[in-house]
Amino acid sequence: MDFRARVDAWVFGPRVQGLITVVIIFNAVILGVETSARAMAQAGPMILLLDSLCLAIFTVEMLAKLYARRLTFFRNGWNLFDLLVVGVAYLPAGQGFSVLRALRVLRLLRIVSVTPRLRRVVEGFLDAVPGMASVFLLMGLIFYVFAVIATKLFGAAFPEWFGTLGDSAYSLFQIMTLESWSMGIVRPVMQVYPQAWLFFVPFILITTFTVMNLVVGLIVNSMQDAHHAEENEMTGAYRDEVLARLKAIEEALVQQAPSDRQTCNGNQAADQSSRARQD
Amino acid sequence: MDFRARVDAWVFGPRVQGLITVVIIFNAVILGVETSARAMAQAGPMILLLDSLCLAIFTVEMLAKLYARRLTFFRNGWNLFDLLVVGVAYLPAGQGFSVLRALRVLRLLRIVSVTPRLRRVVEGFLDAVPGMASVFLLMGLIFYVFAVIATKLFGAAFPEWFGTLGDSAYSLFQIMTLESWSMGIVRPVMQVYPQAWLFFVPFILITTFTVMNLVVGLIVNSMQDAHHAEENEMTGAYRDEVLARLKAIEEALVQQAPSDRQTCNGNQAADQSSRARQD
Amino acid sequence: MDFRARVDAWVFGPRVQGLITVVIIFNAVILGVETSARAMAQAGPMILLLDSLCLAIFTVEMLAKLYARRLTFFRNGWNLFDLLVVGVAYLPAGQGFSVLRALRVLRLLRIVSVTPRLRRVVEGFLDAVPGMASVFLLMGLIFYVFAVIATKLFGAAFPEWFGTLGDSAYSLFQIMTLESWSMGIVRPVMQVYPQAWLFFVPFILITTFTVMNLVVGLIVNSMQDAHHAEENEMTGAYRDEVLARLKAIEEALVQQAPSDRQTCNGNQAADQSSRARQD
Amino acid sequence: MDFRARVDAWVFGPRVQGLITVVIIFNAVILGVETSARAMAQAGPMILLLDSLCLAIFTVEMLAKLYARRLTFFRNGWNLFDLLVVGVAYLPAGQGFSVLRALRVLRLLRIVSVTPRLRRVVEGFLDAVPGMASVFLLMGLIFYVFAVIATKLFGAAFPEWFGTLGDSAYSLFQIMTLESWSMGIVRPVMQVYPQAWLFFVPFILITTFTVMNLVVGLIVNSMQDAHHAEENEMTGAYRDEVLARLKAIEEALVQQAPSDRQTCNGNQAADQSSRARQD
Repeated sequence: MDFRARVDAWVFGPRVQGLITVVIIFNAVILGVETSARAMAQAGPMILLLDSLCLAIFTVEMLAKLYARRLTFFRNGWNLFDLLVVGVAYLPAGQGFSVLRALRVLRLLRIVSVTPRLRRVVEGFLDAVPGMASVFLLMGLIFYVFAVIATKLFGAAFPEWFGTLGDSAYSLFQIMTLESWSMGIVRPVMQVYPQAWLFFVPFILITTFTVMNLVVGLIVNSMQDAHHAEENEMTGAYRDEVLARLKAIEEALVQQAPSDRQTCNGNQAADQSSRARQD
Repeated sequence: MDFRARVDAWVFGPRVQGLITVVIIFNAVILGVETSARAMAQAGPMILLLDSLCLAIFTVEMLAKLYARRLTFFRNGWNLFDLLVVGVAYLPAGQGFSVLRALRVLRLLRIVSVTPRLRRVVEGFLDAVPGMASVFLLMGLIFYVFAVIATKLFGAAFPEWFGTLGDSAYSLFQIMTLESWSMGIVRPVMQVYPQAWLFFVPFILITTFTVMNLVVGLIVNSMQDAHHAEENEMTGAYRDEVLARLKAIEEALVQQAPSDRQTCNGNQAADQSSRARQD
Repeated sequence: MDFRARVDAWVFGPRVQGLITVVIIFNAVILGVETSARAMAQAGPMILLLDSLCLAIFTVEMLAKLYARRLTFFRNGWNLFDLLVVGVAYLPAGQGFSVLRALRVLRLLRIVSVTPRLRRVVEGFLDAVPGMASVFLLMGLIFYVFAVIATKLFGAAFPEWFGTLGDSAYSLFQIMTLESWSMGIVRPVMQVYPQAWLFFVPFILITTFTVMNLVVGLIVNSMQDAHHAEENEMTGAYRDEVLARLKAIEEALVQQAPSDRQTCNGNQAADQSSRARQD
Repeated sequence: MDFRARVDAWVFGPRVQGLITVVIIFNAVILGVETSARAMAQAGPMILLLDSLCLAIFTVEMLAKLYARRLTFFRNGWNLFDLLVVGVAYLPAGQGFSVLRALRVLRLLRIVSVTPRLRRVVEGFLDAVPGMASVFLLMGLIFYVFAVIATKLFGAAFPEWFGTLGDSAYSLFQIMTLESWSMGIVRPVMQVYPQAWLFFVPFILITTFTVMNLVVGLIVNSMQDAHHAEENEMTGAYRDEVLARLKAIEEALVQQAPSDRQTCNGNQAADQSSRARQD
């Protein structure tokens, strides 16, 4: 066993992964404490030091994994995810300093990649996405068309809500979630354009109906997957046994009656066709 | 192959349809750029020209399709949809100028009619509508009855919300979506009519329950469709084989008992009835 | 056929029921027009006269049905419903005058009782209610307990929202529908009692979870009903045929082998037990 | 039968449990009346006395149950629940006096533990919880990560909403329920940080999608449980009969072919293997 293989066994082994889980949880606490102004005033340098220590451990782990697996490391989506959320801490912090610092918290999501059960839940979510691609595309199209129309119709009078395509899309998203859609947006708009409900009420009905269909599709798909798995497990064995037994009886009957071949000629063809079907 | 048939093959062929898809996407970008005041100030005439170009291409396509298919063109719902959303650009723009201009954006929805997957999603939605007709009718009836009552009871005191039948219907729709129903509408109404909750809370419960039943019905229908399709595919083959094998065994039995002709005759009737059942 | 039977056939016959449907729709229009102040100013007496005419027709219908069916009339829930919504117009109108006048609009709901499809939808809703009784009871209990606690804790500081048991129940219903629960109610309460979220967040989680379970139960029930109906229709016939054929084959085999009884004594018992099972 | 067994039979018997049910309902009324300031002014001491009487009855019941069952009393979750909600009345009431007084109302929830149907509903809810553990854990993780980021990014500018980790978690819970998320929180935040929607819109999409998956999982699980129960009941009997009949036919065939002992022997192995399979 060469050194690379030993590094691989060590870093992907249960002991190192267990340690990493502990470090992630510890880092979660540290990052939580970091949000407290009082704690930072009392023990700021120590907290930042501990955070850097966690980062160092993750960095060593990542480097070891990269060394052990080389390019195959990048084939696993979870490895890429780990690398990304750890690597964000090394991005040069310029003007968007606070945002990048905040994004380092995403590192805690590594708990998903080291916990098989959470991993399976997330993979289950991602599996459902391709089946919803068409509906998402349709949703995007509806949003784009309605956003362009809203900007053209209401942009001049309500620049804050419908001034640009982006403003309109955000406002329409808010309306789709039904948040303050009427009292906050549509009633004021109707003060200027009394017929505005002809635009917004259909939008609500269409998007709600589309989301409803998305959920229905998701339920039906999950149900069918569960049903299939069960079918193959339970019913399959029973069916195979019934067919095997019927075949055995048929053959026993055919074998038993060889002496008088001529008696019922009419049935011979049927018998042969039945045999043909069995082969 | 005459000219009409050649036009048909050309305009409904994959190359022209591919081109049309590209033009729709290009037009989507153009119409999006049109909403930007800065872009219009810099390159307004060019943008409008490109938009007109797109419209021209769609118009030629529509005319070619009309020429190729003649009246059968109108039998396909998607053709009618295309004609409508393209044709809206040629409506005379009077006072409602900006509205008609805005409606031209609906043209982008043609991407649905040229993309088979999106088409199937929309057709799936439309297929679900007839099954919901009764519930929609009931919903309409509930809205009408509650709107008339609300107008009679609260119209005088709250003309903005319940002044006319239309105002009441809109306010009830807002209440049904639960948007600001209490803080925005019912609590103010209860300041004047303390028993108003006896009207609004049952309305919320009834409409929520009706919508819930609509969703449940939709799920059950989808599930049954999926289940049926699967049944026919999987179980059908198994059943056919069981029945075929049983028939073969029955025939083998009849063939086996030839020694005493009486017995054979006695079974003939049963055999015939069994055959009759199988046909 | 005596006079009572003839009245029965006439009033429950398709012609009178068709006429009643027309009258209900006409009355719906009349009652809608009544909400318009302008229409009432122009043709008030005529509108009220037409409304009275509709009421008269319904009254005659009700009396004829009562005469025809006598006490069995009251056994049908839809008859009772009709009687109630028509009869409300004859209640003495005292101080609650406008409310009783408004309730007369419920008469339009008769369209449900005369339309078989809508009737079935409503009956489907009502069928689902008993299965939800336990959950409704639990929901009522949760509301009562939380309302008593809320009144005791927050009644003194927020009399408008939690002053009495009724106020608390209404506010909790609003919170359950998630309308302005945080910005409108809980954040102001948390200004006085910072720990108030310990009361409201669990309330939201519990009621949401209960409602979710209600919906899940409704879906599972509907699905099972649909599945059962289908099973009996499709699978039942297949199963009966398989069993009948297997039985016929068994009997044919037993019948065929009577000459040599002694040969396989060991099997006789099994054969008898199999026969016993079939009887 | 010793004294302990007789106490057990008495206190868990239908008569005492029926009495306890009546006392709980009576106590519910008393506790409801206690919230009315007028009733307390007129008959305060009497109401408090009746409440104490109810408490005394519950206390005696609890002590009897504890005496009868000794330590096995604590093995049943419902017993522990009863003990807890009754025992809360005996906690020393210090500064949080009103809260502890209010929590005594939880005692009414005992109606669940004494009503088998409600008990089953609650047990059904609790059964669903373990299956959702992974999703809950994931939800908690998402909340923690987003709360830390929100505190870091927006804590300084909006201390009321995102000042501490707890404030952020509460605000994010409000946003997840979609209550005033845009008009109340995100639009004001976007006045200061125009890109804030990049944080909040993904948060809404992720949490909504997670909740949706939770509901879908719940539906699929319930459906499968119902399906399994039904399968075992209905299909099981049919399958057993088919297999039994096939066995009978196989045996009849073996019996029929006795003339040539070799044939019979040849089938014996098959017969034995078939028997082995059935055992």
